[in-house]
Amino acid sequence: MSTRERAMICEVGPRDGLQIAKTRMSTPDKLAWIEAIAAAGVGEIEIGSFVPPRVIPQMADTGEILAGSLRLLDRYPDLVVQTLIPNLRGAQAAYEGGAHRVSIPVSVSEGHSRSNLNRSVDEQIAEVERIIAWVRAQPRAMPVLAACSTAFGCSIDGVVRTEQVVRVAAGLAEAGADQVMLADTVGYAHPAQIKEVVRAVRAEIGDRLGGIHLHDTCGLGIANALAALEEGVRQFDSCIAGLGGCPYAPGASGNIVTEDLVFMLESMGFATGIDLAKLLEARAVLHAGLPAEPMHGQLPKAGIPRTFKAAA
Amino acid sequence: MSTRERAMICEVGPRDGLQIAKTRMSTPDKLAWIEAIAAAGVGEIEIGSFVPPRVIPQMADTGEILAGSLRLLDRYPDLVVQTLIPNLRGAQAAYEGGAHRVSIPVSVSEGHSRSNLNRSVDEQIAEVERIIAWVRAQPRAMPVLAACSTAFGCSIDGVVRTEQVVRVAAGLAEAGADQVMLADTVGYAHPAQIKEVVRAVRAEIGDRLGGIHLHDTCGLGIANALAALEEGVRQFDSCIAGLGGCPYAPGASGNIVTEDLVFMLESMGFATGIDLAKLLEARAVLHAGLPAEPMHGQLPKAGIPRTFKAAA
Repeated sequence: MSTRERAMICEVGPRDGLQIAKTRMSTPDKLAWIEAIAAAGVGEIEIGSFVPPRVIPQMADTGEILAGSLRLLDRYPDLVVQTLIPNLRGAQAAYEGGAHRVSIPVSVSEGHSRSNLNRSVDEQIAEVERIIAWVRAQPRAMPVLAACSTAFGCSIDGVVRTEQVVRVAAGLAEAGADQVMLADTVGYAHPAQIKEVVRAVRAEIGDRLGGIHLHDTCGLGIANALAALEEGVRQFDSCIAGLGGCPYAPGASGNIVTEDLVFMLESMGFATGIDLAKLLEARAVLHAGLPAEPMHGQLPKAGIPRTFKAAA
Repeated sequence: MSTRERAMICEVGPRDGLQIAKTRMSTPDKLAWIEAIAAAGVGEIEIGSFVPPRVIPQMADTGEILAGSLRLLDRYPDLVVQTLIPNLRGAQAAYEGGAHRVSIPVSVSEGHSRSNLNRSVDEQIAEVERIIAWVRAQPRAMPVLAACSTAFGCSIDGVVRTEQVVRVAAGLAEAGADQVMLADTVGYAHPAQIKEVVRAVRAEIGDRLGGIHLHDTCGLGIANALAALEEGVRQFDSCIAGLGGCPYAPGASGNIVTEDLVFMLESMGFATGIDLAKLLEARAVLHAGLPAEPMHGQLPKAGIPRTFKAAA
């Protein structure tokens, strides 16, 4: 076991990356990719979302993907298999399918909430309460992450104030969420803002503040991850090859790139548990399954520098 | 005048970007690009290098580019026109051409010094001393920046220790360099290392420590800029479109991307003096002159977010 401090990465590519990808990945290709991700040592994977297929057809096979991912536990017994759910119905499907953990998006900005979920912010917080009540009534434990979407700006409403984020985060903690995530859904954040919001939310909800979900839309994704790291955040969502992009910004990158993030964290002495060379193999598996999709990330193009030593 | 703290950017694309570019830019196209850079409000431009044309043919027109850049002073009287020089002969050419400032690369690692300059590290420090003696004997002042190349790792020698950087930086300060720069020539640095080296060098040479020169080879360029900023560095080299790449890493990006860097600095409240929209116009001028070259940077692809307000 490493004596270095841990930093956890949840690979969200099979959900956030694929749901915006221009081309479709087949179910067997998705499962091969998820297996390669687990083989690289990634401990947590968001494998899909239980949303209506007419809304996001790329996620129509989430039930099958969940079942296949759970079969990987034979070889990777510590793997955490997570799905995104927008509502109670999704939570029930995730629970019945055996998901270890669910994440629920709750927009901080009203415009995004109405456009994305067709509900007000407070209605979605109330939905989170209902979901948690239902989950807690089941025989099996299934932790619930609630993510403050558009926490750093909104493509519809524009500026999102820190007080708005604190209010929503407090509401989600109050509703019983095991962890409250902060998500830069549209990729507008800058490092000083990351620090301000992390501090303000932690002052309100303490260690219920979980990880951070960043996009690289404007090129600041990894710098924002550094800012969060410096504020004590140790849990990051990211996506191999920064897959996905942004629906309103053609050519923009998607989530922060897992390969570059792992390189930064391990270089700085944090133990992610991830083998960078094997992570590049998982990138190749992704590319084989989605050959037309642009692949982001600098480290994979440059290769692992000779000075790199992974945290032992 | 802004009351916000300043952060200076030296656009090094016409030198560092173009010298590695696969395709060649014509002299008129270079001058059009440099004019667009000045029009965007960039205060310092490294316009070329006085090196033998057989070594870097892309820089053969540096004399002409220097003369053309100096003609821009009619409209941009505060513009600082800088050239890179490897030796005394280069310094003389720069001085005679009217350059405002020169930068001299001095490798910290022996392997890079011998491969790049065909001299040992100490021989190049001695050359800096000779250059400064010559420059100081001329009637016109011409500040000399000395850059510690491979300060964060070397593709030939591998790890570069902080003590090595401190020794070279001290030697350059002793030799009389007006400012000592730190350069991540191959792009191996990580944020914790940036902070360690900046602190150690500043402890040795104080405010003779000037700016930082970063590459985005492994995807950490902007995060490294943030780390330097947090350590008090207020002067950055960067390159529009991250032009250039890395000779030993096909597909890798070159310098950190000016567009993304300006976006970060201005978002965080620093005044760069640069108009981001006009900077994107300068990017278009570059693209027109070098249409086959890959263009890096996320902000230009996403567009300026609606939440962005430049430092006034």
